[in-house]
Amino acid sequence: MTLLAELAAAIGPDHVLAGPAGAPFLTDWRRRYTGRAAAVVRPASTAEVARVVGICLRHGAPMVPQGGNTGLAGGATPDDSGRAVVISLARMNRIRAVDPLNDTLVAEAGCVLQAVQDAARQAGRLFPLSLASEGSCTIGGNLSTNAGGTQVLRYGNARELALGLEVVTPDGEIWNGLRGLRKDNTGYHLRDLYLGAEGTLGIITAATLRLFPLPAAQCVALAALGTLDDALALLARARSGFDAALTAFEIMSGASLDVVVRAFPRQRVPLAPAPWYALLELSDSEGEAHARERFERVLTAALDDGVVRDVAIAESLAQGKALWHLRESISEAQAAEGKNIKHDIAVPTSAIPAFVAATDALLERWLPGVRHVTFGHLGDGNLHYNVSRPESMPEAGFLARQDQVYRLVHDSVQAHGGSISAEHGIGQLRRDELPRYKSPVEMALMRRLKQALDPRGLMNPGKVLPPPARFARPPGGDAGGPAKPDPRRPG
Amino acid sequence: MTLLAELAAAIGPDHVLAGPAGAPFLTDWRRRYTGRAAAVVRPASTAEVARVVGICLRHGAPMVPQGGNTGLAGGATPDDSGRAVVISLARMNRIRAVDPLNDTLVAEAGCVLQAVQDAARQAGRLFPLSLASEGSCTIGGNLSTNAGGTQVLRYGNARELALGLEVVTPDGEIWNGLRGLRKDNTGYHLRDLYLGAEGTLGIITAATLRLFPLPAAQCVALAALGTLDDALALLARARSGFDAALTAFEIMSGASLDVVVRAFPRQRVPLAPAPWYALLELSDSEGEAHARERFERVLTAALDDGVVRDVAIAESLAQGKALWHLRESISEAQAAEGKNIKHDIAVPTSAIPAFVAATDALLERWLPGVRHVTFGHLGDGNLHYNVSRPESMPEAGFLARQDQVYRLVHDSVQAHGGSISAEHGIGQLRRDELPRYKSPVEMALMRRLKQALDPRGLMNPGKVLPPPARFARPPGGDAGGPAKPDPRRPG
Repeated sequence: MTLLAELAAAIGPDHVLAGPAGAPFLTDWRRRYTGRAAAVVRPASTAEVARVVGICLRHGAPMVPQGGNTGLAGGATPDDSGRAVVISLARMNRIRAVDPLNDTLVAEAGCVLQAVQDAARQAGRLFPLSLASEGSCTIGGNLSTNAGGTQVLRYGNARELALGLEVVTPDGEIWNGLRGLRKDNTGYHLRDLYLGAEGTLGIITAATLRLFPLPAAQCVALAALGTLDDALALLARARSGFDAALTAFEIMSGASLDVVVRAFPRQRVPLAPAPWYALLELSDSEGEAHARERFERVLTAALDDGVVRDVAIAESLAQGKALWHLRESISEAQAAEGKNIKHDIAVPTSAIPAFVAATDALLERWLPGVRHVTFGHLGDGNLHYNVSRPESMPEAGFLARQDQVYRLVHDSVQAHGGSISAEHGIGQLRRDELPRYKSPVEMALMRRLKQALDPRGLMNPGKVLPPPARFARPPGGDAGGPAKPDPRRPG
Repeated sequence: MTLLAELAAAIGPDHVLAGPAGAPFLTDWRRRYTGRAAAVVRPASTAEVARVVGICLRHGAPMVPQGGNTGLAGGATPDDSGRAVVISLARMNRIRAVDPLNDTLVAEAGCVLQAVQDAARQAGRLFPLSLASEGSCTIGGNLSTNAGGTQVLRYGNARELALGLEVVTPDGEIWNGLRGLRKDNTGYHLRDLYLGAEGTLGIITAATLRLFPLPAAQCVALAALGTLDDALALLARARSGFDAALTAFEIMSGASLDVVVRAFPRQRVPLAPAPWYALLELSDSEGEAHARERFERVLTAALDDGVVRDVAIAESLAQGKALWHLRESISEAQAAEGKNIKHDIAVPTSAIPAFVAATDALLERWLPGVRHVTFGHLGDGNLHYNVSRPESMPEAGFLARQDQVYRLVHDSVQAHGGSISAEHGIGQLRRDELPRYKSPVEMALMRRLKQALDPRGLMNPGKVLPPPARFARPPGGDAGGPAKPDPRRPG
């Protein structure tokens, strides 16, 4: 039988898409990558996924797992060989179990994140993972890319929210690791290998997720700040004063909010112009009045001590939402002004002021008039360090320099002990940069793991790790080549 | 050159111990295991560890990493072949850096846990890992065994407290993964492979650890409970009412506290006798008065609703310590009454009442008069399920049944979706039980990882995984053989 006939026999012909029906699965949502595929298959159960993998294995067909297709690094888009089978998990969308007394929930990989949040809330619990794409991304994709979002400060990344996994291995076997345990020291933590592996080591088909108590009240405040050092000082005070009740601490440059107000004139910043703003969210287990009282105590002291210039505490849910909306509108507002060059980077929180000062200066020297739209999750050391063209420069000329901008920014990240992908993953987008920023020892260890768990190399090939052919390239080539002796040299 | 001569040349003859000088390193502290070794070496730096590993590799000498030698599963004791080199990390005991603004600290593996706690406190921060052996265990051992302790409910296991690691691989290479980042999605998480691997995949030489704000106040309460179901109901109320401020929720059976009061007559339980007691600890970011007020609100409601029988809230630090002391004295008190059979197990928190009822009944049917001393970290689903002999039974006869008791209890753990080692690890103690409770798929994946990262099999052999020779045994043999078709059958 042919590959397609076997697949159709295994999961039903309606769920094997070839030709135009499969097209939506072959382009990522930001339309940066388009691939081709032998078929797009939509299995409905773990057993069907295992069957599909077994068939692909026999036919030597590369497999590309896909969730909501909302990734930002091209990790779920096939290459253009046309040989791959895209395995969409979208039909595996059952909540298998909710256990409020154990504070766990078992969700299949294709559950949309919002559906998981809703199932938790219906049981009187919180599933705290929260991202812009939560209405369409899937929990399987979130776990495979170790998604971050706005609540990491308190609840951790997707990695920290998964107690157990069910995985179909590249051999087509099913590993049932759906343990709902907080403590389990019985050998190697397979779970943490599959989390964040972007589907290159196996296919996550279900997960046991951690739930938390719903906060009694949430309160939001905006603070105007003179410098990033002041922002760090405010963060330290907020962490001491609120401990785990501090569920978000977002930073936005004044320029970021200028962009928002230009694009969306009905939005307004309730404070006088300032170089930086911090958005703080407090989740309180006692109630609204207590939350506000705590905010007032800590923020008034910060005001008195000159750490912040001004403060606005939301007086209602609507006001709190409006403050969040400012933060959430930055990307869209920036897009309205033309294409920009994005970086999703992390450095140690304490290094953020030095990183921003050094990198801004480097870019300005190299590209006079360049505009910075810097914002992100300060409490996690994670910045969306976006760069817009100088006003006098045509867009095409600016975008032609994208790789050089990446190089300059990422070299600076490396020099400050940081990561070139904080929450979006490597996928195709950063794959060829990886060997420049990882030591040869680390790259070799990663390749050994890939070889051990996917010896045929059929599981999402060409993602995360450069394909084997590239290993052989002589050093000194392009940015995708092996690590250079001095990775800190800007390009 | 001989192995010993090369080692002496590499790290200095004073730090290569052979003969009686090495003896203290060859027996675990509970004196369950004694091994022999070609030498005990005490390198002082990561480079020296790498040199030692390189030498052992060339000589084909097995290596056994060792921290404070306080493990409970024999993971740091060599076998009796006399071929192994014990690598003590004790001289690597520097705190390399403290970064209060990033809330991180870099400690070498040989730092005693208490020294790490002290270094954090000196910087005005909390390093929350806390165990009975904290005065002598080392952070390297804690990370290698993924230690738990009393604060897991709030802060997680050792695994969750390590942001980055430095590791010497079985090839003698140094992986510098000492990143101090909360978000880093750049490939496979090597860190989580080494954590909890008990030194079988490489030697952790240093770690970047997470720090937290010091609580403004801590308050402790003891609640008397009728049933474990009531204990779960109280836990749910405490989690909702205190959220992350609930830093401990320990459970103790009435029998456990009887044992303490018998052994240490100066200790007293400040409540009337009850089947169960819960110890709650609240860490508050506002202050003593606020903490007490919160306790009173939630515990009074629980009293009014009949969830708890009685409550004592500590009125001073001394009273709080006395309550903790009851909990911490159970093991020692039980030891004073003779040897007992210990289990360190976890089940989903919601399954604890059913697990205890079913397992107690099974044991009593099989060994009438058996006495249960059950206590542990209820909030983590982790029980120290200890079993004492029937009064009428001689100790020797009881201990002769140890393996059967293990089998019965662990089969029940398995039937309740649990783990046979919650926080102590596998080591030698549970190694031969592991294949009974892990699926063949999981065992095979673990062996592939071991093979990939330690192809010569020289890194702490015979720990965690049964040695290769055992793989070949025909099924149906002893408990150390391959998994049986029905793992739930009690022995």
